[in-house]
Amino acid sequence: MKKTVLVPLAQGCEELEAVTIIDLLVRADIEVVTASLDNERVITASRGVQLVAQMTLDQALQQDYDMVVLPGGLPGADYLNADTRVQQKLQQTVEKGGFAAAICAAPKVLQTAGLLDNKQVTSYPGALQLDQNAKYDWVDQAVVEDGAIITSRGPGTAMDFALLLIVKLRGDEMRQKVERSLVRA
Amino acid sequence: MKKTVLVPLAQGCEELEAVTIIDLLVRADIEVVTASLDNERVITASRGVQLVAQMTLDQALQQDYDMVVLPGGLPGADYLNADTRVQQKLQQTVEKGGFAAAICAAPKVLQTAGLLDNKQVTSYPGALQLDQNAKYDWVDQAVVEDGAIITSRGPGTAMDFALLLIVKLRGDEMRQKVERSLVRA
Repeated sequence: MKKTVLVPLAQGCEELEAVTIIDLLVRADIEVVTASLDNERVITASRGVQLVAQMTLDQALQQDYDMVVLPGGLPGADYLNADTRVQQKLQQTVEKGGFAAAICAAPKVLQTAGLLDNKQVTSYPGALQLDQNAKYDWVDQAVVEDGAIITSRGPGTAMDFALLLIVKLRGDEMRQKVERSLVRA
Repeated sequence: MKKTVLVPLAQGCEELEAVTIIDLLVRADIEVVTASLDNERVITASRGVQLVAQMTLDQALQQDYDMVVLPGGLPGADYLNADTRVQQKLQQTVEKGGFAAAICAAPKVLQTAGLLDNKQVTSYPGALQLDQNAKYDWVDQAVVEDGAIITSRGPGTAMDFALLLIVKLRGDEMRQKVERSLVRA
């Protein structure tokens, strides 16, 4: 059965991160479901690109996913962070053996969902709260994997992030195939 | 005055290339105009992402641009290649001292417009016709600059391509600023 991934799209999400994730997962023959938080399916992203989500989040939540991936960008990540439906779907997906992944400003949504305790994580520099109570270990790497949690730094690391998501869902041979098709430098 | 760039969006364009170009140029404080070839402003890109163009190409052609940038992808690049309005705008832009840039499958549109003679160029491997009559010099590099013509290889080189476009329009200091904001690996 095809692997399925939910990518919630908030107004003000980072379009380069969102599209890199979607594009590469689709190249890996993964079913990607994009969902807008509200009833407006046209998303105006952080640099003005307008993307059309396939469905609303309420519609998308009616099925299970192997992975939930959160693009960053502001205010997009703040909207994701304030949405309890997103937190619940992240928690449920991990409880059922799936993955929760986030890039740039969005790893804080995983923090709010209580998924970062005792984990190695990364984010856009400064995007994760680094107070005394933070129970995670923030590392300055392009992509960080720790069990069910995968995090990354920003637009410049989105491709490596998406390629690691492909490894988790489809294996390294598929990652190699997709990476070759990109003709990277 | 703000630099202005036209990005024609054809059905079936490569969404990662299109969005990387738009996102990075907007970060560099360049005005980016996205235009659909026909009256349908919703573009279904090569991996299924739907983008909304700001206006139609007929509307966009009513002004001059400092640069025209063509995303690749198939069948998107074929639609660009068959559109005489695109060829004419490329020619006019170069004649007036501007730039013509294309990535992936789209450099062939520059060939059709007669802009590649005696130029060093690149493209997605195999995307440019390499017959005996080809008067350009194809080189296997991530990004190739030759006067007014800038070409690049594919999704994996789109970020370097967009950063060079920023150098041409806004200088190297702006490129450095944008590149830092991306937190590349």
